[in-house]
Amino acid sequence: MNTPNTEITTKAASSTDGLFGKDFLLTWEKKREDLETILSVAEDLKMLRDQNISPRCFDSGLAISNFRDNSTRTRFSFASAANLLGLAVQDLDEGKSQIAHGETVRETSAMISFLSDIIGIRDDMFLGAGNAYMREVGAALDEAFADGVLPQRPGIINLQCDIDHPTQSMADLLHLKTVFGSLENLKGKKIAMTWAYSPSYGKPLSVPQGIIGLMTRLGMQVNLAFPEGYGLIPEVVELAGRQAGESGGSFNVVNSMEEAFSGADIVYPKSWAPFHVMQRRTELLRRNDHDGLKGLEKECLANNAKHKDWECTEEKMKLTREGKALYMHCLPADISGVSCVAGEVAATVFERYRVPLYKQAGFKPYIIAAMMLTNRFPDPAGILGDLEEKGRQRVK
Amino acid sequence: MNTPNTEITTKAASSTDGLFGKDFLLTWEKKREDLETILSVAEDLKMLRDQNISPRCFDSGLAISNFRDNSTRTRFSFASAANLLGLAVQDLDEGKSQIAHGETVRETSAMISFLSDIIGIRDDMFLGAGNAYMREVGAALDEAFADGVLPQRPGIINLQCDIDHPTQSMADLLHLKTVFGSLENLKGKKIAMTWAYSPSYGKPLSVPQGIIGLMTRLGMQVNLAFPEGYGLIPEVVELAGRQAGESGGSFNVVNSMEEAFSGADIVYPKSWAPFHVMQRRTELLRRNDHDGLKGLEKECLANNAKHKDWECTEEKMKLTREGKALYMHCLPADISGVSCVAGEVAATVFERYRVPLYKQAGFKPYIIAAMMLTNRFPDPAGILGDLEEKGRQRVK
Amino acid sequence: MNTPNTEITTKAASSTDGLFGKDFLLTWEKKREDLETILSVAEDLKMLRDQNISPRCFDSGLAISNFRDNSTRTRFSFASAANLLGLAVQDLDEGKSQIAHGETVRETSAMISFLSDIIGIRDDMFLGAGNAYMREVGAALDEAFADGVLPQRPGIINLQCDIDHPTQSMADLLHLKTVFGSLENLKGKKIAMTWAYSPSYGKPLSVPQGIIGLMTRLGMQVNLAFPEGYGLIPEVVELAGRQAGESGGSFNVVNSMEEAFSGADIVYPKSWAPFHVMQRRTELLRRNDHDGLKGLEKECLANNAKHKDWECTEEKMKLTREGKALYMHCLPADISGVSCVAGEVAATVFERYRVPLYKQAGFKPYIIAAMMLTNRFPDPAGILGDLEEKGRQRVK
Repeated sequence: MNTPNTEITTKAASSTDGLFGKDFLLTWEKKREDLETILSVAEDLKMLRDQNISPRCFDSGLAISNFRDNSTRTRFSFASAANLLGLAVQDLDEGKSQIAHGETVRETSAMISFLSDIIGIRDDMFLGAGNAYMREVGAALDEAFADGVLPQRPGIINLQCDIDHPTQSMADLLHLKTVFGSLENLKGKKIAMTWAYSPSYGKPLSVPQGIIGLMTRLGMQVNLAFPEGYGLIPEVVELAGRQAGESGGSFNVVNSMEEAFSGADIVYPKSWAPFHVMQRRTELLRRNDHDGLKGLEKECLANNAKHKDWECTEEKMKLTREGKALYMHCLPADISGVSCVAGEVAATVFERYRVPLYKQAGFKPYIIAAMMLTNRFPDPAGILGDLEEKGRQRVK
Repeated sequence: MNTPNTEITTKAASSTDGLFGKDFLLTWEKKREDLETILSVAEDLKMLRDQNISPRCFDSGLAISNFRDNSTRTRFSFASAANLLGLAVQDLDEGKSQIAHGETVRETSAMISFLSDIIGIRDDMFLGAGNAYMREVGAALDEAFADGVLPQRPGIINLQCDIDHPTQSMADLLHLKTVFGSLENLKGKKIAMTWAYSPSYGKPLSVPQGIIGLMTRLGMQVNLAFPEGYGLIPEVVELAGRQAGESGGSFNVVNSMEEAFSGADIVYPKSWAPFHVMQRRTELLRRNDHDGLKGLEKECLANNAKHKDWECTEEKMKLTREGKALYMHCLPADISGVSCVAGEVAATVFERYRVPLYKQAGFKPYIIAAMMLTNRFPDPAGILGDLEEKGRQRVK
Repeated sequence: MNTPNTEITTKAASSTDGLFGKDFLLTWEKKREDLETILSVAEDLKMLRDQNISPRCFDSGLAISNFRDNSTRTRFSFASAANLLGLAVQDLDEGKSQIAHGETVRETSAMISFLSDIIGIRDDMFLGAGNAYMREVGAALDEAFADGVLPQRPGIINLQCDIDHPTQSMADLLHLKTVFGSLENLKGKKIAMTWAYSPSYGKPLSVPQGIIGLMTRLGMQVNLAFPEGYGLIPEVVELAGRQAGESGGSFNVVNSMEEAFSGADIVYPKSWAPFHVMQRRTELLRRNDHDGLKGLEKECLANNAKHKDWECTEEKMKLTREGKALYMHCLPADISGVSCVAGEVAATVFERYRVPLYKQAGFKPYIIAAMMLTNRFPDPAGILGDLEEKGRQRVK
């Protein structure tokens, strides 16, 4: 790992056309240089704070969060990012609102936005719905701004949907950049994004999809592995293949964890529910079919149980490059013998990588702050330079 | 609509005797000039923020919110107003507190107020209770301040009670002032505050009461219309009549939506539960009589269903002045064919007025901020002038 | 009561070795001079705010709260303290988090702390568990900081555990210091910490333990009284005796409220569940044994009912020094004829002491703020002096 930089690295010339005033919904909608700007701004924000310089650039303002599913680390990352820049978090708790009153997304979107700067949304339960909901909110905000209802158009940040989990994958990428020294150094590196056994079911597809949708753009050799029948959304898999070709990397789908691990520089073993199961589950959830959901869960757990050998064990780690691949996970992991009897990863493997795993998670607040900042400021390099020059202490 | 002003309009001479250190519980307890000050401060706050000047006048401080009923737009308006002025919101969630422990209102009021500046309360479920509760809190705060328990006496803002909804009616008035150009221009204008059909029941009386309690003070011709048996609290209706006489306007109660709409400049069709039903409902709620409540709901919905023709249709809109009356609603509305099969308003009417309706809602954060500011500052014109002169950017 | 001071009294020479970067978990782990520093900083913070000088010393930052049991006054005190110093509160609501997902304390502790300054925890339900949980969090934070996962090690403040309630006892001590003029004046004063009857059961032991664990260090004559079978954690009782000897005071345990009240300068009658009952309750809670819990409650209430005479009546107050002992309570109290038919204290006694009781409670925000400030700043006198000199107005 490199020594930390102590100078603003965000290039003055960095293009933010794809970021300023644009929602951050899918990494593959952003140009590579925009992604590099996000990483660079995140690094600068971290560097400033580590030097006790406050990067607060809002005197007041609101960051709305709408968590339609449970969250700890993303919730705290969002709150930390907002606070770092000077925004107060206001949670949209749909249970305490009048939304049950028959209110439309179009209307609620405008109503919460009169003085809001950023809206963060987690909506990952329904396949085909989460990302679509974010776009519906976005369209409503566009309309309200165009109509003069809103004085400004708040930016939306995807805090995990059915398709992508960009704050996770970008934090993961910043971790890789930090560990390997540069994005350039990632070229040719082999990453194994693999399914892993879990005693629970219904885990979203957004993490593996986010990883293959992002890492295939960096010239990496991306290997996706899962037991037969555990496929991801086909469009995202196709996209990954296309992107790998364009970036000079490769993308392969295999049905063997061992094959994916073989010679890998990085492994990311993580459970998920098969695409077709998530489709059935979505329908059952929509119909509130409790018996159907119970039946599906039973069926799936029985299916999962056939693949208990998809565990990231010490033996499998030995297959990786020099037996020393970087182990990654979005956390929390199902650790065999710790959080469950048998799960995604052996306790000794997890423990050996605990520190880098936690560092990986620690990038998320800065990634979210960078997404907020680039959404609201056309010249991030300028604002960061000003903040550094002013040097206002965060803790007096 | 006028071009936006870009200069502080709050008059240096504006009297705030009725506002500074005084709770805002009912509009009709305030002098007309106090209401004008609120409108003017709200306009100035909006103007400052629209010019990216931060009107933050608290370096720290708390705004407590106590929502005893669901809320979206008032909750976000309160949070936005607090943040705009520099206060942090702390929610009093009675479910997570020790209030069930047998604690008195008198005690809780003091306990949450040691470092608080503002307390906002929504309590609209029990007829005869909501406003009374706010006064009980106020008396407890007076006593605690007099006793030296509190270093200052926090101000209370009524965020909707059983009698009035002043943050709503004042936002509505600021909307009217903006649309018609001035309060002076509202003189002689005809407004129809009418009941409308809804497939739900138990909606509070505070909005129609708030409207007739405020608009009768402006020399307007106020027409209140409802089907027989759907009356409001008699004292408020009497007050409206008295005020209309004093302001040179008029106040009429009719039992026909058509009659009220006829020649109207403004229409405000909105469902509510009859006063006598709310009385029975309050008793049943107090007794936790679930069967009684179910029976009452059934009876009321059957009654409502007799008045499905009380819908704001295109035909009825044609009865208004040149067929172009301003349609108003506190939102969310029951829109026929959108949020329900048949409701308060036809979809085409609602859609035509959607933008002004959302702008109407957008005044609420500024009205609440103005109520906060005038409660804490004896010279709002001075503080606004200072803020403008200082010109601190909200977004750097 | 003395006239309020208007000068910073925190001594420049005050040692903060035991406070800076150290968690505040038990008062008896802190040196007496550290406790004096807390009191002094709390007084100075209150003095600054009362003079409308903002003691904000963080430009941004988070104070995490984790309330595993209901709270009103401690929750608001924590929020007030955080806001006063410039920190935003972020609540860790374990029900909305992924903690149920099988996440370890070790992991969650790191995940919520990347940009956090302070973590406040209330965990008082399980005997042997609350304080242990706080130490587990602390060890996880130490490890994460040592590993470079966290840029700083957030400080933990015990907001009530199974053993101590230091923010309460320290606020109580500041109240005593204020009423009696100085800590010196407390020497030789007789305080009666006594059990009192309550119609509820299962009240934590942390308040009486906190009081005997703190007041025995000040040369006071501490009398602990309870009906036979209502003992506290034996180790804390032993500690109290040892400390009393060292401080030149005394510590006695009696089984008579009258005896404890006799000649007392201060009385603190408060209900609690016996130690051995809390042990059984903890086991039943762990096993989720609802029937067992119901049975235990029934048994305990029947036992309590045998001691209805343990009420702080006017007659008992007459036994105190000149009949004028200072009555104290952590609130809310079970007031006979007010919040219950028969309880801890007669209504007339409570009412006579209501104002001092509320003032007692009003010290808690400043005590918590002092714990936060001394945890993060090595030189509290310096920072307080700077804040006073700068004189930034809290309300403009």
